[in-house]
This record gives sequence, C-alpha cells and structure tokens, in this order.
Amino acid sequence: MDRLITVLKKVGNPSVVGLDPKPQILPQQLTQVESVQQLAQSYLDFNRSIIDAVTGLVAVVKPQIAMYEALGPVGLEVYCKTTAYASSKGLYVLGDVKRGDIGTTAAAYASHLAGSPAVGDLETEDLWHEDAITVNPFLGYDGIHPFLQAAEKADKDIFVLCSTSNPSSSQLQALPCGPDGTTVSQHLAELIELWGQDSRGGYGFSRIGAVVGATHPDRASDLRARLPHTFLLVPGYGAQGGTAADVAALFTDNSSYGASISSSRGIIAAWQKDPSYRPDMSRTQALDLVAKAARKAARQMRDDLTAVLN
Amino acid sequence: MDRLITVLKKVGNPSVVGLDPKPQILPQQLTQVESVQQLAQSYLDFNRSIIDAVTGLVAVVKPQIAMYEALGPVGLEVYCKTTAYASSKGLYVLGDVKRGDIGTTAAAYASHLAGSPAVGDLETEDLWHEDAITVNPFLGYDGIHPFLQAAEKADKDIFVLCSTSNPSSSQLQALPCGPDGTTVSQHLAELIELWGQDSRGGYGFSRIGAVVGATHPDRASDLRARLPHTFLLVPGYGAQGGTAADVAALFTDNSSYGASISSSRGIIAAWQKDPSYRPDMSRTQALDLVAKAARKAARQMRDDLTAVLN
Repeated sequence: MDRLITVLKKVGNPSVVGLDPKPQILPQQLTQVESVQQLAQSYLDFNRSIIDAVTGLVAVVKPQIAMYEALGPVGLEVYCKTTAYASSKGLYVLGDVKRGDIGTTAAAYASHLAGSPAVGDLETEDLWHEDAITVNPFLGYDGIHPFLQAAEKADKDIFVLCSTSNPSSSQLQALPCGPDGTTVSQHLAELIELWGQDSRGGYGFSRIGAVVGATHPDRASDLRARLPHTFLLVPGYGAQGGTAADVAALFTDNSSYGASISSSRGIIAAWQKDPSYRPDMSRTQALDLVAKAARKAARQMRDDLTAVLN
Repeated sequence: MDRLITVLKKVGNPSVVGLDPKPQILPQQLTQVESVQQLAQSYLDFNRSIIDAVTGLVAVVKPQIAMYEALGPVGLEVYCKTTAYASSKGLYVLGDVKRGDIGTTAAAYASHLAGSPAVGDLETEDLWHEDAITVNPFLGYDGIHPFLQAAEKADKDIFVLCSTSNPSSSQLQALPCGPDGTTVSQHLAELIELWGQDSRGGYGFSRIGAVVGATHPDRASDLRARLPHTFLLVPGYGAQGGTAADVAALFTDNSSYGASISSSRGIIAAWQKDPSYRPDMSRTQALDLVAKAARKAARQMRDDLTAVLN
C-alpha cells in the first residue's frame, strides 16, 4: 500500500471519488443519445470533467466497472479510457471490479493488474490501467492468491471484501461461525491479516486491503481492531448514510492514513443540487457545472473528514 | 429453468461445455500473434470450431468471461460474438461471470440479462446474449434481487455460487455457522430455496440455480437434498477430478435433469491428446482437429454420464 499512502499523504485527504456514471445522474444534455456508443462517449466526457475537477484535491478515484459493463464492450473501452486518463493525471486508480474465481480463471482476472497474456510475439500490455482492484473472498485463498501474485509482480494492491455496507450483508457476513460467536466477517479479517503478512510495506500495511462499509460503525470499529496491518477501503459514506463521525474510528492510531473513504453520488451527482443548472444549457455548460459542483462537494468532504481526524 | 430443461431433454445430455480459451490450450497455429486483437480473433475461431462440433450433442455452453477479460475490451467483444454465435445455433448460453454487488451496481451488472439501459432515443439492446449467468452471494439478497428481477423480466436464469470445487472453498463455505453445525454453504442452500420460491417453473425448479462443485461428493449430495427446487450447475468434472459416479447423486429422483455437469479442458483441450496433431499443420487443419477431438470427448462425456443415470 506504500504507493497509495504516499499519494494520500501528498494531498492530505483520505477521500476516494467513485466514478460510477449512469443515465440517472448525467445531465440530460449527455443522455440524449441514439446509440450505446454515444452514451459511452458521454460517460467518458462526464468522467473527464470530474477527474479534472478533483485532481489535486483527492488522490484516488474508484471507477465501478459494472456501470461501464452495462454498456457492453464499448462501455468497457470507456472504462479503460477513464482509468488511463485518471492515471495520466497522477491519480491512484482503484478498480471496483469485485472479481472472484479460482486457479487459472482468477489468474485471467488478475490480468487487470498483471497485464494481458504474453504469447507468440505479443508482449504483456497494461490494458486496464488500475493500481488496485477489489476482490470477492467467497472462494477462499485459491481466489486470492493469483491476485496477490499479480499485485506483487506489478507493485499494485488488492482490496478484499470483508464487511459490506448494504442491509442484507448480514445474511452471510454476520453469521456467527466460531464457538465464541466470531462472525464470518471477523473470521475473514483474520484470514486477510494472515494472507497479507508477507507483503507488508514501509507503512506497515500489507498489499491486501479490506473493504469495510461505513454503515455499521460498531462492526467497522471491531474489524479495524482485528486488522492492524490492513488498509481499509470504506464505502457507504454520504449518500449511503455513513457520516464523518462514523468513519473516524477506522483510521489507525499510528497514522491518519489507515483508511480511505469513498463517496460516489455525493460528489459526481452534486450538480443535481445546484440551482444554477438549467435544462437549456449547452453540453459544455452542463459539463462545467458538473465539474464545479463535484469540486465543491469534494472540498466539503475533505474538510468534514480532516475535521474528525484532528 | 424451463427453457434450460427443455433444451437438455431435447439432446438427452446433461453436459455443459465450458468455452474457456487461453493461450496454453490453443494450438500454436492460433497463438503466433502480434496483437491482442489477433489473439482475440483466434479465441473466436477456436470457439466457433468447438460450437460447430458440439451443437446437437450438447445443449449448453458456458463461456468463462475471465478468459476474455484478460484481453481487455477486444476480448469482451469476442465473448459477445461467441455468445451470439452459440445462441444462433440454438444453444443455451450460461455466462460464467460470477458478478456480485448491490443496489444500482448489481442492477448495472444485471444488464447481462436485461439488456443495456434505455435512455433518450436509445432502446434496450441485448449486448451479452446470455440465457443465464452465475452470481456471487457474498453480499446477501441485496446482491441477488436485481439479478432475479432481470431474469424474470427476460425469461432467463441465474446460478448462485453455493459450494465451489476448489480446495480452499472450505475456508469460508464450510465454516459451521449454526448451533447444529450447519455450514455457510448449507445455510446458503436454505437462502437459495427461499429466494427462489416465487419463481418456480413447470419442472418445479426456480429461476435461481446453485453452483455445487463435483469434487466434494458428500458435501454435494447433502446440498442436493437441501435444494429440492433448485437446479444445479456442477463444475469440477473431468480435469478437476470429479467422476460420473461422483455426480450421479446430484440428479433429482423425479427427473434426470436436476443438474448440469460442466467440463471445459476435458473437451476443448482434448486435441492435445490426439496423436494426429502436428506442429506444421495449417491453421485450418489445427482447427479441424480441435473440433474433431472436442466432439469425440463430448460424446464420451455424454455416454459416461447417461450410463450412471440409467
């Protein structure tokens, strides 16, 4: 996690901006389209405006690949153009892909980090431009190891789902699975510490981070204590209900950078609450408003978070 | 599952052919490439040969999307061309995508089944050509419901991971989580029955199938009993170690079609064991050999499975 923590320290802001475009949060100037290709192009324009607006203020963007996948291969092309653009601006790109499989299949997904297969005259190529990805742990270590190997090879990171922010997460994650009432998420926290122990960096965190939702603060604080060498990615801030006070306990004692707090709608859809939006604006004017509102919301989030950290 | 069971009954064969191309199992005539685009084209040619060879003999193909994703967006374009081609031959296409997320993100992934977003003048378009997909249950019902809704709308199905075939699956799935020692997989089986109860079709199975690996026969038989209204997708046959005898117990009493047994390498890489392969063959000759060997292996698998069913 050294690269991540270095960029976070540089901007002095633990926020992560989720780049999750969908028709409902784009100004209508961008959704009056006649083809999936045009909609994908709108996603790219929207993302570029937001990336330009938040660069320098935040260090990390987290595109949610599902939103792009909804547009098929052309959507995924725009995902890659978005990650390449964010990378070119010096942002750390955390691909929220939640992939999970085993053996050679997991190794194939790990090309997100390690690059395309090298075969014949073909050299490995970084197609996805991600510095880290999220991974689903349902299949156990067989589903983690190929991603960890790729991360080590490419000096990148992975974030394993541990306790998610949604209501029904408890159906599986909060099941008691030990004699002392240890839950599946708590057991998973132990495994994540174990799996990561040989990959700790200069800041004391391993290459395996954990995703811990902000919407169950007690559960999150308990997991923070069980994950001393694990950097947290915390979704659920803002639109999903988590507050700055809720997440304060997730930063470690020895460093204010033990966690990264992610918000998507609260930043990229902030333009919807701006009274200066007008339906008869031009596409360019609408994109400018998107950018201005996103920058303002990102600054507010930074101030709210840094206030509880000091 | 009515559409699936109808096509299975028609061919009288519960086999599923995994379409999981990767450089290591392609003849070298197809891997001497200079670009990712060329490798993707080789995957498509390889898949088409296999689809042509097994059509009429099997009813279901299961492309593993990770293999295509390893080639980036151009790989996913070939995934879609593969599924479209298989569909055009009347095959039921089970996309092994193992997606899992919540809320609007899961809804975006569900476009695999429901089609692209309808917005502006843009109509919904089936971009992925899948009749069913696999889904990861780690996030609970919030991560299932959007897929189930899409499946109902489009008369398609989903298969939820319940007990996978890999060694470390036990790290999470075999954890005891109830007072009577019920495991996570067993608890999940109960949830799958519950989640599916309003979507049962004419054959008595719901739209939510379960993925149950063949490599732990005792565990699989127990889950079969706990899943009376759930159609099973059984990976791990052949190359991963599962035998016809291992899977026999997974078919229900009232129908020999309570399960579908999947094999990938055993069929699509069967050419590697054919002594008539020569490195100096032409590309076309190599593809013909791939097809011939796949057809022979698929016929053998059908005979092995139908023998234990009678």
